[in-house]
Amino acid sequence: MITRTATADDWPRIWPFFRDIVAAGETYAYPEDLTEETARPLWMDGHVVVVDQDGTILGSAKMGPNRPGRGAHVSTASFMVDPAAQGRGVGRALGEYAVKWARGAGYHSMQFNAVVETNTGAVALWQALGFQILTTVPEAFESRRHGRVGLHIMYQKL
Amino acid sequence: MITRTATADDWPRIWPFFRDIVAAGETYAYPEDLTEETARPLWMDGHVVVVDQDGTILGSAKMGPNRPGRGAHVSTASFMVDPAAQGRGVGRALGEYAVKWARGAGYHSMQFNAVVETNTGAVALWQALGFQILTTVPEAFESRRHGRVGLHIMYQKL
Repeated sequence: MITRTATADDWPRIWPFFRDIVAAGETYAYPEDLTEETARPLWMDGHVVVVDQDGTILGSAKMGPNRPGRGAHVSTASFMVDPAAQGRGVGRALGEYAVKWARGAGYHSMQFNAVVETNTGAVALWQALGFQILTTVPEAFESRRHGRVGLHIMYQKL
Repeated sequence: MITRTATADDWPRIWPFFRDIVAAGETYAYPEDLTEETARPLWMDGHVVVVDQDGTILGSAKMGPNRPGRGAHVSTASFMVDPAAQGRGVGRALGEYAVKWARGAGYHSMQFNAVVETNTGAVALWQALGFQILTTVPEAFESRRHGRVGLHIMYQKL
């Protein structure tokens, strides 16, 4: 299981779990009507990596500045793990990679803008990697199962 | 002094103060190299209004969903007041308009993602209009005068 930079050829293998994760309605606020083509520039943007096990893509992350210009010293990142590959440390591998990458690139800090509070596995993982919850925006995410739940803003100085 | 929906023709009269406000480096994290053409789609997006006094544009605001899909019930807004028109209630008129517009459009709440903490006039105005500071992301904005300062996340249930 290696974490490597994504190539354009990886997108068709990321898209199936990207689509399923967005459709599940529990973790991401993306437009509802994305296709393989319209989703591509939303994900394949900035520094994108995949977790590759013998040619199977188990997950992906994208990372880069959280804002342009005078906010570009703060990084951010997004993560998707194929539901079929859960429990195998893919999210942790991607999270550790992102923090190390941002530190190496000279970023001051890393900010997650919208971590769904009911996504407790992710919240615990980010906390284990050094992130803290700065605040929770109340009822900011329409979870399919739980209704309106909060979005954590999580942060780590690097 | 009226607040009205912007038309495409208004952009050339918004751009000079948009440019000056971004160049001042105290309040907005936009790309550094914007031109009248490349800045246009960044501002003229969503519901855009201007404060018009006898044909002179004193300020502008844009508003709409803060996130797509499952976050689209939370609104956001951005504001620019021509520095030459400061102290005349233009920011207040735009802020009151935005809150009223979002409430009328059925939004659940309004969130500001990045209010520079040293922009104390704006912070006080948003508080007067009902917003609270949920948290302050430390050192997240590179102010030209003050160095790295915090970005407030401000919020109001509608």
